[in-house]
Amino acid sequence: MKIDGKPYRTIWLGKDGTTVEVIDQTRLPFELVVKPLKSLEDVAVCIEDMTVRGAPLIGATAAYGMALGMAGDTSDKGLATAYERLMRTRPTAVNLRWALDEMRGFLAPLAPGERRAAAYKRAAEICDEDVEINAAIGRNGLAIIEAIAAKKPAGSTINILTHCNAGWLATVDWGTATAPIYMAHDKGMKIHVWVDETRPRNQGASLTAFELGHHGVPHTVIPDNTGGHVMQHGMVDMVIVGTDRTTRTGDVANKIGTYLKALAAKDNGVPFYVALPSPTIDFKLEDGVRDIPIEQRSPEEVTHMTGRLASGAIATVEIVASGSPVANYGFDVTPARLVTGLITEKGVAAANEASIAKLFPERSGS
Amino acid sequence: MKIDGKPYRTIWLGKDGTTVEVIDQTRLPFELVVKPLKSLEDVAVCIEDMTVRGAPLIGATAAYGMALGMAGDTSDKGLATAYERLMRTRPTAVNLRWALDEMRGFLAPLAPGERRAAAYKRAAEICDEDVEINAAIGRNGLAIIEAIAAKKPAGSTINILTHCNAGWLATVDWGTATAPIYMAHDKGMKIHVWVDETRPRNQGASLTAFELGHHGVPHTVIPDNTGGHVMQHGMVDMVIVGTDRTTRTGDVANKIGTYLKALAAKDNGVPFYVALPSPTIDFKLEDGVRDIPIEQRSPEEVTHMTGRLASGAIATVEIVASGSPVANYGFDVTPARLVTGLITEKGVAAANEASIAKLFPERSGS
Repeated sequence: MKIDGKPYRTIWLGKDGTTVEVIDQTRLPFELVVKPLKSLEDVAVCIEDMTVRGAPLIGATAAYGMALGMAGDTSDKGLATAYERLMRTRPTAVNLRWALDEMRGFLAPLAPGERRAAAYKRAAEICDEDVEINAAIGRNGLAIIEAIAAKKPAGSTINILTHCNAGWLATVDWGTATAPIYMAHDKGMKIHVWVDETRPRNQGASLTAFELGHHGVPHTVIPDNTGGHVMQHGMVDMVIVGTDRTTRTGDVANKIGTYLKALAAKDNGVPFYVALPSPTIDFKLEDGVRDIPIEQRSPEEVTHMTGRLASGAIATVEIVASGSPVANYGFDVTPARLVTGLITEKGVAAANEASIAKLFPERSGS
Repeated sequence: MKIDGKPYRTIWLGKDGTTVEVIDQTRLPFELVVKPLKSLEDVAVCIEDMTVRGAPLIGATAAYGMALGMAGDTSDKGLATAYERLMRTRPTAVNLRWALDEMRGFLAPLAPGERRAAAYKRAAEICDEDVEINAAIGRNGLAIIEAIAAKKPAGSTINILTHCNAGWLATVDWGTATAPIYMAHDKGMKIHVWVDETRPRNQGASLTAFELGHHGVPHTVIPDNTGGHVMQHGMVDMVIVGTDRTTRTGDVANKIGTYLKALAAKDNGVPFYVALPSPTIDFKLEDGVRDIPIEQRSPEEVTHMTGRLASGAIATVEIVASGSPVANYGFDVTPARLVTGLITEKGVAAANEASIAKLFPERSGS
């Protein structure tokens, strides 16, 4: 998407044809810094230190990490070293594993002399594939926004609430939850987005607000507590969120707090949509609340907050009473009964086993 | 309640019999500072700058402000000046107006020479009355906690979730929502409190966590997003919150985000109680969502966060993407259908017009 008029992706090949460049997301929302990655180790560190984040972008970055590995050592040993180093960065990330397996499977049969060029080519394709998946999600979601707009007086603003950052900064471009929003906005529809701050890591207030603002999409940041009130007062036409993992029955694991917004949407008759690339559906899982393990993260994410001082310097302050214990669950599960629909690159499914199976007959075994 | 073993109220008369002392709540949770108030103007400023906050405590402080006014000038003019100066501090605060009217009505008929002593006596009584109201709320709420405990295996911990600070720091002592908690804890019951951080002003993470921690009540601070998850997983036995205004039908206006917790409680069969002094019930109001105006507060409460640097200094950091608009609604309304009961000093009412009228026949006109 655009930053102040200039089109960007989150990752791209530098002009020298070897260096990979990424937006340093640890500096957002206060500074736009492009970080050059010149080696396998640069890529590994940038995944570890969250210079890049978001499952699809981590996968794409790992693919380019394999390419930079091949730029250094095209031997079988070099291939194994690159794979192992990158896998260690985030051992539980599904997209990371997928991208590394894909790259290794593709490169291993080739002669070492062919691997460098092939690796760059395949990494670029993986990025383009991610962009196309998100664009397809965007087109499918746009049809829903247009249907909602058709029921309102002509020229009405469509108010969409989102939680966390399922935006283009988490992918190579478009984002998942934001793809329909950008398409509707770019088409000239009047869109306004309620951006949940998304404590404790504030991805909404920092990343989603940054990307919508710099692309020019009207939006308003609200504390996570506010979503119920604005829905109760008719100020929300739909909710669109992302997901980290969705069951074959349509239960949705997403950033902590999503479930509360789904309850408020249900209570006020607001449609609640989840945008996702179809590999996010885990057909092995039946009951999301029972079966999806919820990661507990560091208490410091809650007790401390990082931001910009009046001087411009970045600083971290403690905000919780000293000595008070803290719990920091990373995700929650929204039961399928609260979900209006799943917007995938293959189409929109209702959040139930039959509808999902119908959209993905090859994966559901039906 | 206690701070590290020593009993405190939020306001008390100093040893010299004239100075009034308060806990400076702007320094919490990082420092316990007692601030002496030596004049009418000291009191007015300490209400304006939020050295004290919480409706009952503001009322009690204003009463002592009238006493300090009389310590300076006991004439009719002195009485009028004190009343007007204090009323200007928070013109919309119901408890403030009540306390000032009460003091003026009590002092005006007296001879000037009697006013000083009478004012200190009446201010002390107003404080004691607040303590007794909260203690009565505590006893009535304790019975509910005991009933819940009776249904669990002996020795089980009772998990109570609360939002914002309806604690003793907002009153003279006990608090409203916390009064049943302190009574159950002091009686030796195993209580654990989930403390909602309560963005944007973080009254949970700072004030509620401070007071529970220093009194010795086991508790855990959670981001506001977390309440749904912990209720979904059976980790909450009841919710108790305060309220700023409740209708005669039982609709509850309270700190923004309360409604989302009530929805989650309903969805998971968790009882949701509201603790309140009965004057908080506004018998003129029928439909809370329609009739209760919701104050919009400063965007800076959302965009900036104040806390403690590693150096120990207090600092404010900006945390929202620059230029992004912010909405900051102070309260929301929880419909009566989501409320299990209202815990008042006169007893517990179900959240409906008939039950409330039965508890307060003299006020409901029935």
